[in-house]
Amino acid sequence: MKRKPVSLLLLLLFLLSANHRLLAEDGYRLWQRYEQVQDAARLQAYRQALNELVVQGNSPTLTVAQQELQTGLSSLLGQPLAAVKSPTKQNILVAGTPSGSALVKELATAARLKPLGEEGYLLLTTAKDGKQYTVIAANTDIGVLYGSFHFLRLLQTQQDIGKLSLASSPKIKHRVLNHWDNLDRTVERGYSGFSLWDWHRLPGYIDQRYLDYARANASVGINGTVLTNVNANALVLTQDYLKKVAALADAFRPYGLKVYLTARFSAPIEIGGLKTADPLDPQVQAWWKQKADEIYTLIPDFGGFLVKANSEGQPGPQNYGRTHADGANMLADAVAPHKGIVMWRAFVYSEDEPDDRAKQAYNEFKPLDGQFRDNVLVQVKNGAIDFQPREPFHPLFGAMPKTPLMLELQITQEYLGQGTTLAYLSPMYKETLASDTYAKGKGTTVAKVVDGSVDKHRLTGIAGVANIGTDRNWTGHQFGQANWYSFGRLAWDHALSPEAIADEWIKMTFTGEQEFVAPVKNMMMNSHEAVVNYMTPLGLHHIMGWSHHYGPGPWIKDKHRADWTSVYYHRADEKGIGFDRTASGSNAVNQYFPPVAKEFGSLKRCPEKYLLWFHHVDWDHQVNSGRTLWNELCYRYSSGVDSVRQMQKTWDSLEGMVDRERFSHVKQFLAIQEQEAAWWRDACLLYFQTFSKRPIPQDLEKPAHTLDYYMSLDPQFVPGI
Amino acid sequence: MKRKPVSLLLLLLFLLSANHRLLAEDGYRLWQRYEQVQDAARLQAYRQALNELVVQGNSPTLTVAQQELQTGLSSLLGQPLAAVKSPTKQNILVAGTPSGSALVKELATAARLKPLGEEGYLLLTTAKDGKQYTVIAANTDIGVLYGSFHFLRLLQTQQDIGKLSLASSPKIKHRVLNHWDNLDRTVERGYSGFSLWDWHRLPGYIDQRYLDYARANASVGINGTVLTNVNANALVLTQDYLKKVAALADAFRPYGLKVYLTARFSAPIEIGGLKTADPLDPQVQAWWKQKADEIYTLIPDFGGFLVKANSEGQPGPQNYGRTHADGANMLADAVAPHKGIVMWRAFVYSEDEPDDRAKQAYNEFKPLDGQFRDNVLVQVKNGAIDFQPREPFHPLFGAMPKTPLMLELQITQEYLGQGTTLAYLSPMYKETLASDTYAKGKGTTVAKVVDGSVDKHRLTGIAGVANIGTDRNWTGHQFGQANWYSFGRLAWDHALSPEAIADEWIKMTFTGEQEFVAPVKNMMMNSHEAVVNYMTPLGLHHIMGWSHHYGPGPWIKDKHRADWTSVYYHRADEKGIGFDRTASGSNAVNQYFPPVAKEFGSLKRCPEKYLLWFHHVDWDHQVNSGRTLWNELCYRYSSGVDSVRQMQKTWDSLEGMVDRERFSHVKQFLAIQEQEAAWWRDACLLYFQTFSKRPIPQDLEKPAHTLDYYMSLDPQFVPGI
Repeated sequence: MKRKPVSLLLLLLFLLSANHRLLAEDGYRLWQRYEQVQDAARLQAYRQALNELVVQGNSPTLTVAQQELQTGLSSLLGQPLAAVKSPTKQNILVAGTPSGSALVKELATAARLKPLGEEGYLLLTTAKDGKQYTVIAANTDIGVLYGSFHFLRLLQTQQDIGKLSLASSPKIKHRVLNHWDNLDRTVERGYSGFSLWDWHRLPGYIDQRYLDYARANASVGINGTVLTNVNANALVLTQDYLKKVAALADAFRPYGLKVYLTARFSAPIEIGGLKTADPLDPQVQAWWKQKADEIYTLIPDFGGFLVKANSEGQPGPQNYGRTHADGANMLADAVAPHKGIVMWRAFVYSEDEPDDRAKQAYNEFKPLDGQFRDNVLVQVKNGAIDFQPREPFHPLFGAMPKTPLMLELQITQEYLGQGTTLAYLSPMYKETLASDTYAKGKGTTVAKVVDGSVDKHRLTGIAGVANIGTDRNWTGHQFGQANWYSFGRLAWDHALSPEAIADEWIKMTFTGEQEFVAPVKNMMMNSHEAVVNYMTPLGLHHIMGWSHHYGPGPWIKDKHRADWTSVYYHRADEKGIGFDRTASGSNAVNQYFPPVAKEFGSLKRCPEKYLLWFHHVDWDHQVNSGRTLWNELCYRYSSGVDSVRQMQKTWDSLEGMVDRERFSHVKQFLAIQEQEAAWWRDACLLYFQTFSKRPIPQDLEKPAHTLDYYMSLDPQFVPGI
Repeated sequence: MKRKPVSLLLLLLFLLSANHRLLAEDGYRLWQRYEQVQDAARLQAYRQALNELVVQGNSPTLTVAQQELQTGLSSLLGQPLAAVKSPTKQNILVAGTPSGSALVKELATAARLKPLGEEGYLLLTTAKDGKQYTVIAANTDIGVLYGSFHFLRLLQTQQDIGKLSLASSPKIKHRVLNHWDNLDRTVERGYSGFSLWDWHRLPGYIDQRYLDYARANASVGINGTVLTNVNANALVLTQDYLKKVAALADAFRPYGLKVYLTARFSAPIEIGGLKTADPLDPQVQAWWKQKADEIYTLIPDFGGFLVKANSEGQPGPQNYGRTHADGANMLADAVAPHKGIVMWRAFVYSEDEPDDRAKQAYNEFKPLDGQFRDNVLVQVKNGAIDFQPREPFHPLFGAMPKTPLMLELQITQEYLGQGTTLAYLSPMYKETLASDTYAKGKGTTVAKVVDGSVDKHRLTGIAGVANIGTDRNWTGHQFGQANWYSFGRLAWDHALSPEAIADEWIKMTFTGEQEFVAPVKNMMMNSHEAVVNYMTPLGLHHIMGWSHHYGPGPWIKDKHRADWTSVYYHRADEKGIGFDRTASGSNAVNQYFPPVAKEFGSLKRCPEKYLLWFHHVDWDHQVNSGRTLWNELCYRYSSGVDSVRQMQKTWDSLEGMVDRERFSHVKQFLAIQEQEAAWWRDACLLYFQTFSKRPIPQDLEKPAHTLDYYMSLDPQFVPGI
């Protein structure tokens, strides 16, 4: 069909707008939207510098890198970028490794490349023989891919690429997502639909989504994924399922993403036909070795096992009178010949109720320091209870110098409002990472313990419990994407600031316009504190609804174990509220190194955000604001609700600056969050008031219903259990 | 940014190709892709005839119609179509009702419009005052929307629109999807992910997908949806859930899609606090009336209830010694003041095992003919057993002249290979619809019973058990879309041929190129028979895997009721195979009208496709092909597998004619189907051979494994249960 030139512009405009409509902004594209660069000067500079693409070398990973660069840059530049095998133009983008590309070998000095290790990369502007080169160089193909994503991010966030000389390599070796996904595709604590893993159709069907998942992870440097729930099913270790796992591993491999599985400790009994799972039993050891061999035959680069043992009903070595080290080492020996690792969780419960659950992991694991094989990581949650909206850092960090500790963060918002709550968690992650353990004097931060620099560990790791599911936008809440993103970014480089991460995420995900970026960043940076305030201010914790953890449940009591109830944690009485973990109470503070123990243990010096975590405080105790504790509690709860309303106002003011579909999604979710925030405030204040017997300050909004009403609410079919 | 004209064409081409990549062909757009018309002559004719769009009148439904026409036509024509309130050009597309649009009133004669009823429409080419009009006219706004979709379909399939004079109205009043969706979002017999209804986020969050779902249904004339599983949970009738249902109803309303719910018969006990659910108890009756009032306050156009009672463990009126009519009438009285209806399922089981389960529904329901309220439909499955790959029509059709019978078809492929099987079901639906009951002499087809024309019923209905879930392409299998589509098309007009429906679906879903359409249509038309052949040839039935119905299980026996086992149905022994339903057996044939009973009951005259349904046949009995029954069985099973391989060849030959993503999806699914087909063939032949003691003919492929192997297979976590 021949068209008259005169109509081209019209047609073009029409196509662009039709495009806009057809290309649904449903969040599927995450931070990888590659919209055309808006800053005209930058665009021109980019177009000038990037006239053709040269990727020398040949591997699935390089193919992926080339495709990503070509597609991404063509879209960012608004003009096609040709890929050639050797330079033909003046301004060239080249990507590769010295071993795979003669050009890269010439352009990138070995001296700069070598220290970057197996995953690092170099972004470099240079000239040679009258040609201008922008170079993405690395020692390995996966380094090239990581560098390519970094380079694309520079354009996505409209940075100068004129004089690049930038080296980057990850501070932590294993950067792993933990999927609590069951084989029936339900997801424990999942609030974004169901499991991505379509086990029934595997291995025959490779969903495009698997590739997009791997690609998104690679773009932030995540290099491992545990496919299955820590509350494990041994079935995944049978041959039929291992073939399915292998198919996923094949799909992920080009993106540098290794698969791991959870190992149910009793698997030798359940699927192996043995009578015991005793880790010191030679038959059991042989079974696991044979199982590991079988796995590695199917998946040569299988990552290893994640284990939750002797916790919340899961079987483990203690069933046989053995220690966690005995259990971990048996598995470690099975995977060691294949270079696999074992990630052994420190999140344990004794069968008997302890005087303070917060003390258990430390009490059980610290004595085992030095007893683990060198391919074992002990995986420790950020805090000693369980992913509360705010927790002081876990006392194990710094306390096991001979054992590499892997930090476990929760990206999915089990205790943080779940699927409909906007809570940017990067500040929370950073709070843990930046916490000073004083293990080897001032400055021994959790980050330095985890990255191995304090105790010279080469095996290091960080895990994030994924918030990813079948929802079209991956994370249920559009802003949940920022938590996945920031987990990856901090896992690569824990020195990054939450603000900087939010800044780049917003620009890539929505728009680079400053009138949008600034208010949204502000909203995100305040969002976690807002949730803490309307749920668990001042160090309160674990007062959520029974079992599903949705909505307030400070009145939960009389369950089969006290440390699963709310009253166990808040200990409200007529005198005051809070858990005394000082010497006069459980003395959990004593698990910290002295400078920390002294600070947390002092009613006066304890940071107010942890106040009721460590102290039982009188209702009339005067806090920093000058208010009584009771009044402060009322103001904090109210301010949390106010913050959500402020987020609503902010978002409403941005209408038109973001596509209709995502605007509406966030607007609706914020309205739900506002209702939930008010529910939390009213339910908690009315309940705690039954102890404090004090009025809610006159200037605050009155509860909408009675305490009886709130206690009667019983949400059914809450997702995630 | 100013661009030089010379680069426009290049840019355009680039945008189109970038477009192509970014606009994922993941099947989400169903048959509503509106790709630009490829036939140049047609395109020109369309462009000429459709210069502007005039939709007069104002309602949410008309807004939807206008948007659909404007967006769809702009895309089909490859140029923008302006919408104006009054004609300004020479060639105008006008849509509306005589009451809402003066222009329509002038252009469409009342005489032609009136007989089209509440949902029909008229497509008309006409001229007036020197202007050329293409008119979409109807008596109601929803008629306009249906007409708009029909009109778009004409262009999507590149039909002549030059001299339109086409009237259409539905033959059946209630065209309803049945979703067997549970409140936890699992879907009974669902193979395309999970339930679309995100109950937890409702009513606060209206997912864009709800609108797209309603739109797709409207495009094929489906006007009702039962949101919940027939194995019902009373919770959906509580206030909290009803508000969620109301939010969905609000979203669906502009598309003419009414919501219905399943009513758990024991709801008055479970959520009403009553001690009984006896339908003759005044308190129970009052409870349902009050419940209906509550529902209609929230949803003024609520459709009514679907009920599965006294079947497979569901409670019902028989628990209180009452009849199905007593139960249905109580509910009918509750919704009657609001113009609601009750769809009461005839799919029943007595607690005691019957001599032949096939006879139960007839035996229980026929005596009740005439006892139902006039807002009750009795919903009857296409066959007397349970959605088998092939069943003779249900003997109730024609047997209850005083009761409107609603035909229940299964779109989801519970017994037809489930999620990964390409089986175009339109021929199967048509087989039932075209079956002659002889109830009032020759020509009394099931279709005429169902559409009310035989017995002059004004209340008519047809139901399809949905195959729709959260999978991105809606139906799991790309070709599953064709079954949703053809259900809707046949529900509107059961006179349509499966070929014609396939033809339009292919053109709209993939491409209009004949080299693609012809082979794909051929593949689709043979696909159902292929599945019948490799699963249950010659009238075999219900020999699938236990409970999940996935894969072969002809050896299933010794379960807690015989009529849930395979051996109950195939009755293979050393002498032969098949269920004797003639006078010498269960005499189920006698439930049919004499001409049918004679045909089915005669070993000689019985259609071979139903042979083993009605007869126990000797292994050496000679069938039409001249082969013995055993050999014929072997050839049928083998030919089923061969057909799948032929489908693979066909599909492979079309590579490049369809986008990469959908091509790969179908290719992978066909490979899975081929494995499953061979599994069926081998397992069934080896098993039946233990009775026949005869060899599998030499020229056929040998089974790959032993019978023990096949009997040992035990797939876990099969979707849909």
